[in-house]
Amino acid sequence: MGERLVIIGGDAGGMAAATQARRTSQTLEIVAFERGADTSYSACGIPAVLGGEVFPLGALVAKTPDHFRKMNIDIRTRQLVTAVDFEARTVEVEDLVHRRHYKLGYDLLHFGTGATPARPELPGFDLSHVHGVQTLADAAGVLGFLEGRTLGDVVVVGGGYVGLEMAEAMIRRGARVTVVDASPEVMGTLDPDMGRLVARAMRMHGIAVRNDERVIGIDERAVHTDADGPGSAIPAELVILGLGVRPNAELAAAAGAELGVKGSIVVDRRQETSVEGVYAAGDCCQSIHLVSGRPVHVAVGTVANKMARVAGTNLAGGYATFAGVAGTAATRLCSTEIARTGLGEAEADHAAFDYVVGKVESTTKAGYFPGAEEMIVKLLAEKGSGRVLGAQIVGGPGSAKRIDTVVAALSARMDVDDLIGLDLAYAPFFSTVWDPLQIAARKAREAL
Amino acid sequence: MGERLVIIGGDAGGMAAATQARRTSQTLEIVAFERGADTSYSACGIPAVLGGEVFPLGALVAKTPDHFRKMNIDIRTRQLVTAVDFEARTVEVEDLVHRRHYKLGYDLLHFGTGATPARPELPGFDLSHVHGVQTLADAAGVLGFLEGRTLGDVVVVGGGYVGLEMAEAMIRRGARVTVVDASPEVMGTLDPDMGRLVARAMRMHGIAVRNDERVIGIDERAVHTDADGPGSAIPAELVILGLGVRPNAELAAAAGAELGVKGSIVVDRRQETSVEGVYAAGDCCQSIHLVSGRPVHVAVGTVANKMARVAGTNLAGGYATFAGVAGTAATRLCSTEIARTGLGEAEADHAAFDYVVGKVESTTKAGYFPGAEEMIVKLLAEKGSGRVLGAQIVGGPGSAKRIDTVVAALSARMDVDDLIGLDLAYAPFFSTVWDPLQIAARKAREAL
Repeated sequence: MGERLVIIGGDAGGMAAATQARRTSQTLEIVAFERGADTSYSACGIPAVLGGEVFPLGALVAKTPDHFRKMNIDIRTRQLVTAVDFEARTVEVEDLVHRRHYKLGYDLLHFGTGATPARPELPGFDLSHVHGVQTLADAAGVLGFLEGRTLGDVVVVGGGYVGLEMAEAMIRRGARVTVVDASPEVMGTLDPDMGRLVARAMRMHGIAVRNDERVIGIDERAVHTDADGPGSAIPAELVILGLGVRPNAELAAAAGAELGVKGSIVVDRRQETSVEGVYAAGDCCQSIHLVSGRPVHVAVGTVANKMARVAGTNLAGGYATFAGVAGTAATRLCSTEIARTGLGEAEADHAAFDYVVGKVESTTKAGYFPGAEEMIVKLLAEKGSGRVLGAQIVGGPGSAKRIDTVVAALSARMDVDDLIGLDLAYAPFFSTVWDPLQIAARKAREAL
Repeated sequence: MGERLVIIGGDAGGMAAATQARRTSQTLEIVAFERGADTSYSACGIPAVLGGEVFPLGALVAKTPDHFRKMNIDIRTRQLVTAVDFEARTVEVEDLVHRRHYKLGYDLLHFGTGATPARPELPGFDLSHVHGVQTLADAAGVLGFLEGRTLGDVVVVGGGYVGLEMAEAMIRRGARVTVVDASPEVMGTLDPDMGRLVARAMRMHGIAVRNDERVIGIDERAVHTDADGPGSAIPAELVILGLGVRPNAELAAAAGAELGVKGSIVVDRRQETSVEGVYAAGDCCQSIHLVSGRPVHVAVGTVANKMARVAGTNLAGGYATFAGVAGTAATRLCSTEIARTGLGEAEADHAAFDYVVGKVESTTKAGYFPGAEEMIVKLLAEKGSGRVLGAQIVGGPGSAKRIDTVVAALSARMDVDDLIGLDLAYAPFFSTVWDPLQIAARKAREAL
């Protein structure tokens, strides 16, 4: 037997590393601990299950524990790692089924401990009708609540990606939905002018949107906010939390690993933590934004998988580096698609970039084509260099994945002329002759 | 009054140059000649009009002559330029309306003369039921033929983009459609294994596909091929030609401009021809393939627009260069989308690249999501360097525009690791967690 690699966490950040390590090395012993019963599931699919689009909940499980066992990965579910000793190279484990404790030594260690949805310490957030939607267990909780019930008033706290998707899911269930968001516009990762377009689409679909309101408490019948007047108590028989996440880094921190942005685990480009031989990947750790060069905490499944692939390669003796995150995200509200990548205006300001904006209203197909829908693109480019800094899209079907072209462009440090010159695909049923991204780039070019 | 720029050709290659020249300079006098009655129309939309999806034909006119006149561009329709004298700097023009001839001097000259559909010199190709579908006049001819008629047998000669789209259009009109193609597979710009997927989709939609058959003649009732046996006469009351195009370069050649690949006008990166002060853009001229570095002739509207923008900038005293073509193309057959960019296997062989292939069957959305459809991606990467050389996609709705990510990747000379590392957009209703392009890149990576 070769060295022993211990992995903490049975979702993407952990198991994608385990898989890649096994692909890279057949001799490594791999033991993975997961405190829950499930491995590698698509948390992103939970709103679709709760909205009734996807059935059953189990469809979200990408890979079962048995899948990993067949790869000769010793996955141990319902085992909670309670402590790590970097000196002794041991982990302490609590077997949640048999309520017993044991220690295991390791040669290499990997954290894929993920993140936990924020749940403010305010009155009523612990009530039984208040649900997060991060884990399969959370989702099962909501499904149990919905069972046999005609849904009335639902309040979604937070107007980001999860909030948006859960609002749509609850509308599909026939609920009256109110989204409460503390910021001036929903979708805080978009610039306010683009967020406003999303809010407009939400209202068109019958979702009540309340911005600039902070929730101060929840009781059995209503959500209370800091807004003045009678509107501050919003009826709610079900409350969904979509307030973002915080990295699960306590275990690593307690053992002595360095933490960074928002308390996430600091890693280098090979995903190695501040402790030699100890790696981390996914929602628990920090990454570098490839446009600003600054450390950020980004908790999304795609990034977790990419980080974990890098970590797994390195853990098994290979060599790989993580390119950094572009801050890409995409979602939809019914037929309105939303995507962003790179820096928005506030981020560009914060990173001290001097920039121009190119913004256009174009269409998803040639204007004369049936089904052509509005597609609004906003593109930021650095003054002087013309370097593409970021883009945001709100538009009809087919809009969101267009952002990938900008992801590639900013990863390659292209300038707007490079983007304008790209030989992008065209047919009138797919696009305008000049792709809307390129029209936006031309606008930015004029502003430069 | 400043210098006089004369432009020959009223479609994208000409008028996009005129427009950009006007944007760049307010003092330039711009005179543009178009032999037909229309300017700047979407030839790519013609199959959709003929299939009844888009109505009326006039919807395809992007910009009327009046649009250009308002920009202070002297557009003269139904004026045929019959000769050019590079020494004297004059063009000879035939006014097709009044049947008179005149000369006009120029300081700067631009060719945007386009291309003409190939029409082999074989018996019957001049019959009245044999139609090209390149110009609005062609399209009007087919519409006239269709008027009040219940369509029976239609033969489409050529199984490329136009042939495919016209086959679908005629199916929409209720015809029995046979596509005859001289090559072993349809869609010759795809590798045969990918072309086969398109042929399969065609047959599923009731289109008869006959490969390896050359048309030897057409009569009033049938198309005759070189295939042995009774199948060689294919009933046809309407014959559509989709045999590609040849550049309209005779005028430039007669005046002394250098010709290159397939008789197209040779230009440098600024779109200047071999003659100083004379530029060209669009289907009439040659370009450089940005992967192979070799001269190619690519006749598509997007490239024409991009070349013309570069030419217009330079003609008006600015500085711009054309980045080259990637050989990107996209189309669909009903709900099957098809796209390609960069080099296919035959092109890579021809350009003496040593390469590996990554090919995957993935899905357009997360596998568990309703509406997830097959998406097959083939990616070529150079041995040794890992450089991305090209990709081809055949798949369900949402597949085709994914190719743009590869366009950007190969334009930036990314290798497969760069592509694998891209922070592409994900949500289960838009994509798999690893985008199918990245799964293909991972396969190629393993093969390297």
